[in-house]
This record gives sequence, C-alpha cells and structure tokens, in this order.
Amino acid sequence: MKTQRADFTDVRATNLAVVLRHLRVNGPSSRAAIAASTGLNKATVSSLTSDLIDQRLLRETGLTGNRIGRPSTALALDGSAYAAIGLQVTADRLTALAVDYAGEQLLLWHRVFEKGRVSAITALAQRAASRVRQQGRHVLGLTVAVPGFDRFGADLGGVLSGSLRQPDLSVAVANHTGLAAVAELRHGGYPDGTNLAYVTAAAGIEAGLVVDGRLLPDAGRIGRFSLGPAGAPTLEDLAGVGQLVRRVLQGADPESLADLSPAVEQVTAQARAGDTGTLAALDDTGRYLGQGLALVANLVNPEVIALGDHYAALATWLVPAAEAEMARHTESSARLVASALGLHAAALGGAVAHLDRIDTGELPAHPRD
Amino acid sequence: MKTQRADFTDVRATNLAVVLRHLRVNGPSSRAAIAASTGLNKATVSSLTSDLIDQRLLRETGLTGNRIGRPSTALALDGSAYAAIGLQVTADRLTALAVDYAGEQLLLWHRVFEKGRVSAITALAQRAASRVRQQGRHVLGLTVAVPGFDRFGADLGGVLSGSLRQPDLSVAVANHTGLAAVAELRHGGYPDGTNLAYVTAAAGIEAGLVVDGRLLPDAGRIGRFSLGPAGAPTLEDLAGVGQLVRRVLQGADPESLADLSPAVEQVTAQARAGDTGTLAALDDTGRYLGQGLALVANLVNPEVIALGDHYAALATWLVPAAEAEMARHTESSARLVASALGLHAAALGGAVAHLDRIDTGELPAHPRD
Repeated sequence: MKTQRADFTDVRATNLAVVLRHLRVNGPSSRAAIAASTGLNKATVSSLTSDLIDQRLLRETGLTGNRIGRPSTALALDGSAYAAIGLQVTADRLTALAVDYAGEQLLLWHRVFEKGRVSAITALAQRAASRVRQQGRHVLGLTVAVPGFDRFGADLGGVLSGSLRQPDLSVAVANHTGLAAVAELRHGGYPDGTNLAYVTAAAGIEAGLVVDGRLLPDAGRIGRFSLGPAGAPTLEDLAGVGQLVRRVLQGADPESLADLSPAVEQVTAQARAGDTGTLAALDDTGRYLGQGLALVANLVNPEVIALGDHYAALATWLVPAAEAEMARHTESSARLVASALGLHAAALGGAVAHLDRIDTGELPAHPRD
Repeated sequence: MKTQRADFTDVRATNLAVVLRHLRVNGPSSRAAIAASTGLNKATVSSLTSDLIDQRLLRETGLTGNRIGRPSTALALDGSAYAAIGLQVTADRLTALAVDYAGEQLLLWHRVFEKGRVSAITALAQRAASRVRQQGRHVLGLTVAVPGFDRFGADLGGVLSGSLRQPDLSVAVANHTGLAAVAELRHGGYPDGTNLAYVTAAAGIEAGLVVDGRLLPDAGRIGRFSLGPAGAPTLEDLAGVGQLVRRVLQGADPESLADLSPAVEQVTAQARAGDTGTLAALDDTGRYLGQGLALVANLVNPEVIALGDHYAALATWLVPAAEAEMARHTESSARLVASALGLHAAALGGAVAHLDRIDTGELPAHPRD
C-alpha cells in the first residue's frame, strides 16, 4: 500500500548533496570528518569527493590541523568553475545575464529586440556563452525567460538546442515570473525554506510560486481570473498596469507600447507630484490587486508575496490599498514586499535555476571544458 | 551566498528513510545487501536496523539464500505494530477511524455531536486509543480533523493533549480538507508524486493542496474569494452547496441544517428523476464551481482535482458544466475526478498523516507500548 518514490538512482545524488551541504555548513573538512559526520562509509566518501574534485566543485586546500593522528588533506567548496546564463525576452528587449556558482555576476547585456526574431536570441546566447567561457568558467546551462505560457517557448527550446550545438550545455525555456521567483528566493535575503509568491505585471498579472524551495511548474496564471456571469471583468481588467496607464495617461494606448516602463515612470512622476487623479487610480489598482493577492494568500499561503517589475516600481502607492483589501479577504499573515531585483529578475532566475541543481547533487554531465 | 537548509540532525532520519525504502522496494534483504545498495557503511546499517527492530518496524525473517559465504539473516518491514487515529468533527457528528501502518482499517465509529462539546471529542479519542491498544498496536498519533481554519482548532489541540495524558501519543488538529487530500493521495491509486487538489463543500468551499507529496499548510480557502466592487458575490455565494440546496429545495434553510447530506440526497433524487429546475441549478453550480477550479488549476497546476464530500455525491451533474467552464478559463490539463472516499475522508487522512511520517525516517518517540 506504500506509495513512496522508489527511484534508487538518486541515492548517489542524495549522498553528493549531503557532502556538498556538509562543506557549505562546516567549511573545509577532511574526508574522515565528512564520513564521521554523515554516516557514509569512507570508501563512499572517497568516491564522492573524487567525483566532486574531478568536477572542479571541490578543491584540496592543504592539511587540516587534526590534533590526533596523521594530518589529512582538507577539501573545500569551489564556486568559480561553473556559471550559468539567463536570457530574458520581453516585447522589445533582450537581456543576457551570467553568474557563477559563487554568486558573482559575470555579464549583463541589453539588446533591442524585434518580436519573434529567434535568430537574435540564438546569437546573443552564443555570444554570452563564449564570453563566459573566455573567463574560464564552464557554462552549465542557459535558460530563456519568456513571458506567458504559450507555444513560442516550446518551439524556442528546440530551435535553441539545435543552433547552439553544445551537447554539454543544458538549455531551458521557462516562464519569466517563475524564474523571477527563483531569483528572489536566492537573492532576497529570506530565511531558508521561505514559501514565496512573486507577482509580476509586465506581461499580464502572473504569480511565480515557490513552495518548499521548489518552483511550482506552469503555475501562477492569475490575470485571467474572473468570477461571475459571462463577461465579468478579469483581475487583469481591474488591476493590470496596462489599464492603470490607460486611465492615468489619457491618450496613451498601452497596446501600442512594447514596453510599459516609460509610461510607468510618467505615472510615478505624477503620483510624486500629488496628482489626485493619478493617486485615485493607483488606489483602485492597489485595491483590486489586493483581491488577487488575497486569492494567492488563501490558496497557497506564502510567507512572502514579492511585487516585481512595474508593481515594484509602483509599490509605494499600491501596497497600502492592497494590504487593506487583503485584510478584508484573508487571515493569511503573508508579508507584502517590493522586490529589489528590478526588471531583469527573470534573467537572474534563469541562471540561478541551473546553479541550484548542483546543490541537489545533480552534477554537470561534462566536467571539463 | 548559499541558502540551503543546514539541519544536520536529519542525516540519520534520511538514512532511516533510505533503509525503509530499500526494504519496501526490494522486499526482505540482508544487512550486507542494504549496505551494498545504499552506500551506507555496515556499522551504520547495523545501527539503523537495530533501531528499526527495536521500534518493531522491521523483523528478522530467517536466512536469506545467499549463494556465497555464510547465510545471513534477512530483514523485512512490519506494518502491524503501529496504528494511528483520525477523528473528524462536523457540525453534528464525530467520526473516529483507525488504520495501521500496513493500511488495515481497525475501527470506524460514528457518534452524534453537540457543537463545541470538547469533552465528547476527548472521550471518543480516549476510547478509540484504548481499543486500538487492546488490539496490540502502538498508537502513533491522533489527528482531529476540523472544518475551517478558526481558533477552535488551536484551543482544541491544547485541551486534547492535556486530557489524553499520553506523552507518547502525538496529537494534532488540522483542517479537514487538507487531511482529506492526504488520504486521497495515499488511497486514490494515483502514481507517485501526483500533485493533487481536493475540493470540498461541506464546510464552505475549500481546496486541500498536495504538492510534491506534501500538504501545503493552511492553504486552500477559496470559498471567500470575490472579484469586483465591495459586495460582489463570493465563490461560495455562486457555487456553494448550501446555495444549491436553498435554490432547489424551496423552503429548506441550509443555515438550520447541521448536516447537508439529507438535502443533498433529495437534490440527487430530483436530478435522477430529470427535474428540469434541479438540473438547471446543478448546471449553474457546476459552471461557477468550474470558475473556482480554473483558478486552482491556473494558480497551482495540479494534475488531479478531486471533488470530495457533497461535490462527489453531485459529480454526475456538476462535472460536465465545470469542465466546460474550466476549458474557457485555463489551458491546464488538470483531470477532474470524484473522490471515492466519501464523507469521512478527513478522518482517514488524520490517521494517514501520522503513518506517513515513518516513511520519512521520523521514528516513534516511544518504541514500546
């Protein structure tokens, strides 16, 4: 009657993760100390650490100061050998970002983008990967962060894998909001294991959900939600940034704006100047956004709800109204914060997603460049 | 910059779980075979299995048929030593249910309940625990499944722990819908790791969410959701079973009905007889329920949405309309099914929750009765 997972293949990955974690927590340690602390036998520890040294994830750091017996060689984590790349696609812009396993940002490039031009994405990916390799890092993977959840993503993955011709480079395409949530979790300074929702506006209202350290796949499409007879307004109709811009900047047609950022800047300028119409529109937007956030809070009960991209830029005015509305609809204690990651959070998340896999004991397929 | 969990105390639990899993998958095995397959050293395996034998979770089954070397003693899982109890509280009824670690149902009792009489809950818990102990099982834990997410649950936990006076008995109080989801996952015949939402109507519309084998705590309050100006109808107003009964059975006041079951039976009888008014009301309810389920599907993307309690009884009529509405609001491929667990799914889940913990290597605190 048991329904546990029966995959024994992950025993080695689990053990690798245990060794990596031991070194992360305790700092440089001898093989004997690792064996004693983890309950793994010495032969297993030798084999695991040998793999990790081959993979350049560990290095020998000289002798430990054991008081008893022969001095032994200490092993330490090495974060500089591996890097990963995130490539964020928006309506009119490409952003490429690379970080290494130690968290160092290696490059951040922006390019103008003509929608649908896959060759531009491939070219930028190639150039970013070459640049990172020139810096002596092995590129573990590349994730293209795309808005929405449409077919484009699936097709793009195939085209990219084919044209990059790097069998040892893992290529993924994922929704930008989910990736932004992954980045926020790693770089937002939250305690371990924080359950988090990351809510974005730039490509329609979406929520990336991280539960128990893991991103829920294909989750978070909240903008289309409506309740009532056919034709009832959606959350997007009520709380979308496009709607807000249309209302505040009469004459602006957000449909024609590839990027809402300039319009959002104009709205924030008017709000700072105390324009009453702008403030009233922001209050309404915040209130309806609060209804959507209450829904997220009631359904998945995150500890933190982080507002991303345009919502982060407008957080000063949106948050009070949103919090008041949330209090009416939920007893959740979810904390509402503005993300500090800005507009390329998804690119960062795209890189982080590959580096995170090392921590679970999933080693790179090709250890050497 | 790493933000992994650093709790080394779980290394032993992880290793215990590995041993239990090995035996569950491979059947009776010698200590040497366990060590060879898991990479744990023989001394560690000896120590782990010694604990598990002490805990009556393993038993020695005689000699294995090793072809080489001395025959060695095989170890096998033993599911009969431990049991757990679920106690489900509804407005007018208490249900007690016990199962053992091997999945055998040991008792199922129903009692009339006067709301708020905690002493009746305590007395029934005492009697159920005594009966299970008379059957020679160690009672690992007892969970009281309560409707809603109110203060009553927290208070009840304290009262129960105090009055049961069993320091080795783990007592929990949890929302009934979450527990029903746990039971559905273990007894519904789904593949390992299925992500599941369990939606109930009996105490307001709620969704219990299981993601990666783990129940999201305090999640799933969807009935109160509304979108629009103040006073907009909630999902409960539109798709609640109380509303349905009120509409179909004119004169019935569901507020005065402690248990909706008789009214739901009347509705199903009228639907079977082809009553057009009843069928139209069920269609409307199904349609609005579909909007709520689309929301669940879009937000957390479960593979299965199981309809529980009254929704399961009405599934024949609700599902077609709900599926049509979901198709309009989501591209999720979530499968909509009627749960077969009936009205005491939460009691079963309350017991299962304690037994599941053994599988993660969390051994009972007090091995012997």
